[in-house]
Amino acid sequence: MKNNYKADFPLLANSDLIYLDSAATSQKTQCVIDAVTNYYQTQNANVHRALYGLGAAATAEYEQARKKVADFINAEADEVIFTKGTTQGLNWIASGFAEQVLKPGDEILISIEEHHSNLVPWQIIAQKTGAKLVYVYLTADLNFDYADFEAKLNSKTKIVALHHMSNVLGNILDISKLAELTHNFGAYLVVDGAQAAAHTVLDMKKFNCDFYAFSGHKMFGPMGIGVLFGKRELLAKMQPVEYGGEMINEVSEQSADFKAAPLKFEAGTQNVAGAIGLGVAIDYLKQVGITKIEKVDLDLSKYAKNKLEEIGGITIYGHNHGIISFNLDGVHPHDVVSFLDADGLCLRAGHHCAEPLMNYLKIPACLRASFSIYNDYSDVDALANSLKKIKEFFGK
Amino acid sequence: MKNNYKADFPLLANSDLIYLDSAATSQKTQCVIDAVTNYYQTQNANVHRALYGLGAAATAEYEQARKKVADFINAEADEVIFTKGTTQGLNWIASGFAEQVLKPGDEILISIEEHHSNLVPWQIIAQKTGAKLVYVYLTADLNFDYADFEAKLNSKTKIVALHHMSNVLGNILDISKLAELTHNFGAYLVVDGAQAAAHTVLDMKKFNCDFYAFSGHKMFGPMGIGVLFGKRELLAKMQPVEYGGEMINEVSEQSADFKAAPLKFEAGTQNVAGAIGLGVAIDYLKQVGITKIEKVDLDLSKYAKNKLEEIGGITIYGHNHGIISFNLDGVHPHDVVSFLDADGLCLRAGHHCAEPLMNYLKIPACLRASFSIYNDYSDVDALANSLKKIKEFFGK
Repeated sequence: MKNNYKADFPLLANSDLIYLDSAATSQKTQCVIDAVTNYYQTQNANVHRALYGLGAAATAEYEQARKKVADFINAEADEVIFTKGTTQGLNWIASGFAEQVLKPGDEILISIEEHHSNLVPWQIIAQKTGAKLVYVYLTADLNFDYADFEAKLNSKTKIVALHHMSNVLGNILDISKLAELTHNFGAYLVVDGAQAAAHTVLDMKKFNCDFYAFSGHKMFGPMGIGVLFGKRELLAKMQPVEYGGEMINEVSEQSADFKAAPLKFEAGTQNVAGAIGLGVAIDYLKQVGITKIEKVDLDLSKYAKNKLEEIGGITIYGHNHGIISFNLDGVHPHDVVSFLDADGLCLRAGHHCAEPLMNYLKIPACLRASFSIYNDYSDVDALANSLKKIKEFFGK
Repeated sequence: MKNNYKADFPLLANSDLIYLDSAATSQKTQCVIDAVTNYYQTQNANVHRALYGLGAAATAEYEQARKKVADFINAEADEVIFTKGTTQGLNWIASGFAEQVLKPGDEILISIEEHHSNLVPWQIIAQKTGAKLVYVYLTADLNFDYADFEAKLNSKTKIVALHHMSNVLGNILDISKLAELTHNFGAYLVVDGAQAAAHTVLDMKKFNCDFYAFSGHKMFGPMGIGVLFGKRELLAKMQPVEYGGEMINEVSEQSADFKAAPLKFEAGTQNVAGAIGLGVAIDYLKQVGITKIEKVDLDLSKYAKNKLEEIGGITIYGHNHGIISFNLDGVHPHDVVSFLDADGLCLRAGHHCAEPLMNYLKIPACLRASFSIYNDYSDVDALANSLKKIKEFFGK
């Protein structure tokens, strides 16, 4: 399997780096970089404010980007809010929606695999409201335990907050099924889509989840732009978390009323260049094809699993959808990553913002290789060769 | 007075547009656009996470940008938090700091000139805490009324929140003096610096205000990046408003503790390219010189005032620091702005996110010409010529 997508990504095309950290942030295509440049060079104006031609054109481009996002996730444009990123979206759901819904004794159900961004906001809201934070654990083969989920879901459950794809184990949850189970108890399903957005098909109508948050920078888009999807009727109930310019209808000295979603949530000047760049990233993703990307992800993580098992002395925690997490037995992952760096390999080592999962796995940290469309077998071979050398160096 | 700064701003250099809406958003220098492009093409990685060389270099660049901001405003680097923009910074002060401080019966003192971003968050916090929102009004010549301020400041005042430079009237407040008065009553001074940041010297040590928020996009920087300054001891007390990756020290299933500022407030992936672009915008601002910019601002607004007065039949509301707000008597500002647009002039007409000020001035809306270093007398002449034609067309 050899692909030529790397040529579309200038950082990779013009260096010998082997980038295996796309789960932290993806590289950017030239078309996305060009879109940002073109915006600033020929279209730059504030949106939803200016009546003159330049401003009207910028507003049209910004709303066109929102439409592209809506089409990409099979939702309506007024259900798509631009945010700074997934973390902001999840925090807004917690403080703008869940805080209104939760009463003392209610339960918030999350999983032990959650990224801190889909975990700490729920700890805080649980403390504020007197709700209880309940965890779903894993099966013996380190998959989400649907039986444990069903056992813990009950009439006290008001919010279920789950990842779509784990940033450590790479497993993808069945959101449609989880939404059905959640709704049977009258609870709301919030989905952290940060890892999934560029790696599997997103379909809000099929998923039927209540909220879904993701980031532009993990899907070839610019930094500082993300998306919060919410069902129209829930966005109508949800309170804005930030107040300011262009999200209000009318302001008197002592009170204000707000526009309808999505503008209700977009206070202040938005990252217009970021939104337009994200729109172009989505064009690129559609051109490549999400199913093609998913095939590459699964193929590379399986190939990597085989390569790492051949070496031996490596514990693998997950190998799914373009992510393989592992440790070289007896060597601290921070040492491993430094040696890999010397060979031009970019991998992350650490707790991956998932400390409760690390505690559950009884490890302080692990290495993670994460792939995207610009990776191929040769990248995995380079990783395997470097790991062999490191293993020999440490006499393991 | 003729300058050649326009050549540095590609949107203006390559078009015949006369851009007089810098108070909404500034145009971008090629050096800022290049910095963003260069980041994505050669340095792109997530920061404060990656141990490999590419990630370490990106982290160093990001922290270097923070240092540039700190130097620019005469503050310490750990007092500089990167935000999405001014609106986010002001909202964070309101909900992360003021909400802890305020009790029923306490007072929040703001002015009738505030932008909605420094007004609606205080309405909401007043409603949440039972505090009272009190307004300072204007003198007869439409300046901030220091006597009214002193009359309203009292021992119940806990938060004073003021603009540094008005986005409609262009007047600049004496922050040092206001801080002294505020602190005499043990209250905290929050400053909305959105309009001031690229137009007058910022010196946190001299100002001695407690918090100061501004945006990158109004100072030639990228969209989606801003700065919140807070005094170190206050940032230590202030609660984060967003929780997630890289802002925590340690997370267990039921609780988490957080890093010290500034990282405590920077949850999730940051707009690294935006921060680096803002750093380069600051390099450019320093190269031009803020005092030079302030001279151009004052010169152009005075020149515009004279030109508009020559035409007659125009009511001017403010003419300061690169902003002149006015109406053509008897013609709706939205009609005026459409005619100006046809002549290639980009001006904003509306309430300028300051409805209480519009009500105070007893007007529904006004026109605003706002200048920056890339404007010159010829732009004002073009505005005056177009206004003359419009006046004739409407038979005024």
